Amino acid sequence: MEAVQVDPPQKMEVRIKILFTSICHTDLSAWLGENETQRVYPRILGHEAAGIVESVGEGVMDMKEGDHVVPIFNGECGECVYCKCEKTNLCEKYRVNPFKSVMVNDGRTRFSTNKDGKKKPIFHFLNTSTFSEYTVLDSACVVKIDSNAPLKNMTLLSCGVSTGIGAAWNTANVQADSSVAIFGLGPVGLAVAEGARARGASKIIGVDINSQKFVKGQAMGITDFFNPKDLDKPVHKKILEMTGSGVDFSFECVGNLDVLREAFLSTHDGWGLTVVLGIHPGPRMIPLHPMELFDGRKIVGSVFGDVKGKTQLPHFAKQCMRGVVNLDEFITHELPFDKINEAIQLLVDGKSLRWLLHL
Amino acid sequence: MEAVQVDPPQKMEVRIKILFTSICHTDLSAWLGENETQRVYPRILGHEAAGIVESVGEGVMDMKEGDHVVPIFNGECGECVYCKCEKTNLCEKYRVNPFKSVMVNDGRTRFSTNKDGKKKPIFHFLNTSTFSEYTVLDSACVVKIDSNAPLKNMTLLSCGVSTGIGAAWNTANVQADSSVAIFGLGPVGLAVAEGARARGASKIIGVDINSQKFVKGQAMGITDFFNPKDLDKPVHKKILEMTGSGVDFSFECVGNLDVLREAFLSTHDGWGLTVVLGIHPGPRMIPLHPMELFDGRKIVGSVFGDVKGKTQLPHFAKQCMRGVVNLDEFITHELPFDKINEAIQLLVDGKSLRWLLHL
Repeated sequence: MEAVQVDPPQKMEVRIKILFTSICHTDLSAWLGENETQRVYPRILGHEAAGIVESVGEGVMDMKEGDHVVPIFNGECGECVYCKCEKTNLCEKYRVNPFKSVMVNDGRTRFSTNKDGKKKPIFHFLNTSTFSEYTVLDSACVVKIDSNAPLKNMTLLSCGVSTGIGAAWNTANVQADSSVAIFGLGPVGLAVAEGARARGASKIIGVDINSQKFVKGQAMGITDFFNPKDLDKPVHKKILEMTGSGVDFSFECVGNLDVLREAFLSTHDGWGLTVVLGIHPGPRMIPLHPMELFDGRKIVGSVFGDVKGKTQLPHFAKQCMRGVVNLDEFITHELPFDKINEAIQLLVDGKSLRWLLHL
Repeated sequence: MEAVQVDPPQKMEVRIKILFTSICHTDLSAWLGENETQRVYPRILGHEAAGIVESVGEGVMDMKEGDHVVPIFNGECGECVYCKCEKTNLCEKYRVNPFKSVMVNDGRTRFSTNKDGKKKPIFHFLNTSTFSEYTVLDSACVVKIDSNAPLKNMTLLSCGVSTGIGAAWNTANVQADSSVAIFGLGPVGLAVAEGARARGASKIIGVDINSQKFVKGQAMGITDFFNPKDLDKPVHKKILEMTGSGVDFSFECVGNLDVLREAFLSTHDGWGLTVVLGIHPGPRMIPLHPMELFDGRKIVGSVFGDVKGKTQLPHFAKQCMRGVVNLDEFITHELPFDKINEAIQLLVDGKSLRWLLHL
């Protein structure tokens, strides 16, 4: 814990008082220095959060002091050719960029420390930096939500839940009575299940090497579960047996290419779609043969569930309020923010789904 | 040339008098014995053709003697779960199957020779076997077309042109003012160009290692052309320069994985779609890294241009009659059928686009 100076928001920026933040695997991974080719230190991690606007910079018209907001690491300027295209949620300037460490406006940071009269910059992380009482974000990375929405739960909209629900709703467009297989039942996988359940999928198969995950999974819509360790056959053969001809949609939420191949082969030929959500840091290429594409199975990647944050999340927050999606089950633990190291350790140990830290 | 016996059509089969047939690379490849793990001999090759119904078997209600028809190697029964799904054109029973050599009804052939009083079967090929004056097909593999359509041109609907046009219209859904890159300007690639032109694409870039292909390409809508051999940089970098940020759609019509990777990288991030049409017989996997899918570029395979033959081709034939698509340019040479060996040699030498053989 360290006191930092948080500068006022500049043009088109917003300063937020963070009330809740949680820890996502991406924070953990960055904290461990994994997959980081361009590290900058010191920096403030954290990207899943909810808070209240403290002040806005020049030109910000869609938010004012006191508004309830959630930060998004994958921003939406609303003006660029990408934002105007309905096929993508990757904004030209504010899309997710793990190596961006300064503000777009002036290439500087809004965080600093003052040691021995010398101002030292503290760098930003993932457009957000929410492990701080106050943080400054580009307004493209801040979504105003209904002030009646339970702000604590809205934290989940910042990342994992939006990613999983969005993958089911936007990327895959899961339809009623369809079948789904989800590989990896962490928060993203469980959010996929919740999204598929909300869309009326009739069979939602969970696959995880931790059989305990089925307990939580059932509350999120998982109808069938198996642990690959208990099988004497490839996972896709088991799923073909369970479904007759494969699932309509499979979701890879693990970041393992052998799992990805099983997910692909688990889908129905002709129309099966595999959505890749896992992070694959290794050098290995996609283990699919080009001729396998001619069986009509498709594979696509999904970033932030193809959610256009500023456009879609305000409505999504209302859907959560109406109970279309149940967020309560995702928050398994709560602690004051100064216990963050304890929370991280439990996340490392795989003993929590989402920690909620109160600032 | 050999006299064969062609048996009458059985239940749900049609016997056709072939008037025109052409030679596609798939015939050539089968003739050379490439990619054939389950060869059966003797057999009758040929799958791109047009003809007239000579007789129909029991239960065939949608065709009668005298109807003008084209055979399709990728059939459509209209009844199975695949045919009823709008996402695929792969019929459960009659989808393309290079190793199918007998009729579905009874597992026998309708072709035979009689030597020394002994009836010897001649096997079928690709649901069609059009290198014969008469052939018997499952009715799911025969499409009735308008009797006013120029039957000679309709031959092209059997395979290459439907594949290319369908890839542009069905698989990619090319829109007006979009940009397209086509890798390989054989008949399929040129049909993609013709399809993209018909949809109003504003930039249609042709890429081929034979610069002569641009001459023909221009008549089919190719607006820009380059030969990779003339470049001092990767193909995708050239295309990014030509377009600013990449094309909306790329089509791989070569069957080369390095070309496939270039085609993928040539598309616009966020929404670029690469359609794989080339046949990739080697063991090498798709040379794409899973994280590359997170840039929003997509890749899909397309069989027969995702065309549901019996449903879509009658309308497509009418579109051709109205000049929506120009088929004349595809037929570069005509010969009587007994010159087939000569035609095959010129196809091997790359000197023809489509031979039309008159029976």
